[in-house]
Amino acid sequence: MKTPKKVLSALKEGRKFLIAAHINPDGDALGSALALSSALSSLGKKTYVYSRDPVPRQYEFLPRHEKVISDLKNVRPAETMLVLVDCNCPERAALEEYRFKSSLVIDHHETEKDFGDVRWVDSGAAATGLMVYALIKALGIGINKEIATDLYTAIAVDTGTFRYGNTSSEVLMAGAALVKAGAEPGRIADALYETWDYRRFKLLVMTLHTLEMKSGIAMAYVTKDMFRKTGTGEDDTENFSNFPRMIDSVKISIFLRELGKDTWKVSLRSKGDVNVAKIAEQFGGGGHRNAAGCKIKADLESARRLLFRAGRK
Amino acid sequence: MKTPKKVLSALKEGRKFLIAAHINPDGDALGSALALSSALSSLGKKTYVYSRDPVPRQYEFLPRHEKVISDLKNVRPAETMLVLVDCNCPERAALEEYRFKSSLVIDHHETEKDFGDVRWVDSGAAATGLMVYALIKALGIGINKEIATDLYTAIAVDTGTFRYGNTSSEVLMAGAALVKAGAEPGRIADALYETWDYRRFKLLVMTLHTLEMKSGIAMAYVTKDMFRKTGTGEDDTENFSNFPRMIDSVKISIFLRELGKDTWKVSLRSKGDVNVAKIAEQFGGGGHRNAAGCKIKADLESARRLLFRAGRK
Repeated sequence: MKTPKKVLSALKEGRKFLIAAHINPDGDALGSALALSSALSSLGKKTYVYSRDPVPRQYEFLPRHEKVISDLKNVRPAETMLVLVDCNCPERAALEEYRFKSSLVIDHHETEKDFGDVRWVDSGAAATGLMVYALIKALGIGINKEIATDLYTAIAVDTGTFRYGNTSSEVLMAGAALVKAGAEPGRIADALYETWDYRRFKLLVMTLHTLEMKSGIAMAYVTKDMFRKTGTGEDDTENFSNFPRMIDSVKISIFLRELGKDTWKVSLRSKGDVNVAKIAEQFGGGGHRNAAGCKIKADLESARRLLFRAGRK
Repeated sequence: MKTPKKVLSALKEGRKFLIAAHINPDGDALGSALALSSALSSLGKKTYVYSRDPVPRQYEFLPRHEKVISDLKNVRPAETMLVLVDCNCPERAALEEYRFKSSLVIDHHETEKDFGDVRWVDSGAAATGLMVYALIKALGIGINKEIATDLYTAIAVDTGTFRYGNTSSEVLMAGAALVKAGAEPGRIADALYETWDYRRFKLLVMTLHTLEMKSGIAMAYVTKDMFRKTGTGEDDTENFSNFPRMIDSVKISIFLRELGKDTWKVSLRSKGDVNVAKIAEQFGGGGHRNAAGCKIKADLESARRLLFRAGRK
């Protein structure tokens, strides 16, 4: 990966940086921001890492995550270079109200925005972490265990730990180098994937037990009673709708969560070309082709019947 | 990884090979055997790949899997070199009744057996696939897309696609080289993880429903009756023992599969430093620190009690 000279110059010349992750930060945003902050600090520069939202529990193993700030009360924007990582406009980081001395964008999302004095957006990069890795190497900064852990996590999250189609030879080479520098793949994967609360696990099993399959549509549900029985809440169902995707014949996965009497929140997921946004729209919802949502007011049996019928079309 | 000269000589000198996977073959055994077979064939040698048990459905994407034989009716053992991969004694491959011209062992399991004219057992290797990869390179054989897919799968399966603690820098470097040679990580991961038969999924849910937690030990079981009810078989349970690891408080995951009346096959998995090989040894089994197995003759309740007791120590 080639690192643009203007990006390297901007980082070399700057003295004070606010490195910002996007709202609802994921491992790529946080790992990239923390790694870049460590690297620039080692050059004697002053850095802040900013995230409007708190660091999610599964990322609390990241070194120096506790230094992430969620407000700018100690930062003087007019003296500081804003570095957006894993996003490319200030709104995505909830920073649109501030005026910084200068700005730099490092991102791998496709974009229409045009923000940034210096901009490096490479939608071919599997993770922003790979871009930051290339930058740190190009700056001649040694990669210590902390930086290696941050960057390995960033890359792991955006490639499904090397399971997604974006896992190139280059991605694995970077992984190898970061392990050599001290990243521990087992410990990182455990932190990312093996930190389910037992109650949440029980709720998942209970939910999957309700799964019904018809013509490529998998439907499962969770009721308030199930939350009560397992001592869980609605946050615990995040990602549940993805599990039935592991079944080969599933084209659409539909997950219903009880909001109140005869009221259901519906999450729809699909594989490949199947467009679930169209289904959601029929019930007044919306979303993307492979991930959409809506609400339905009906008793469970009617809701399921309506959704099976809509999904079959 | 250093490849012993005597192993290279044995492969160079042999003309006819029976490359055998262990009973209930997994991706490491099958991928290693198929890769070695392709490589030796490219040198003009005659090879057979043998597995007593059928190739599990999730490995049917492996190139040339349809050539795996399950009997020796067309093989003349007295003229053939036996190559055991991913196991180190003929009993593990159900071949103890045959006398071969010579024998070679390529395995990464810790062992007490002493079989084989030439023996290469490296318990430090994350996968037998890595050993075969080193051999193929040392033999100067080009790695084509087929071999790359076989070896990548072998390594992926035994490292949990780079999620386990055995994921070293060397493992990721091998992955990178194999992707360069044509292995497709996304397609392989989909084949391994998103092609569950619906019946197998139902069996998993039923199994997880039996899960019991005590002092960091998660125990689940599958009975013949559950196979019958879901229309599944024993090879559908591969990897089941890993699921409870996602629970944060789980240190040991134990999975029992009914073999016959009051007879259970036990799979043990652990996180971090917890050594389940020690537990398996108490019951006459063995394995690695984080993955081991044994058999227990007892009724379900007694077996569970014994295992909970052994695990608590």
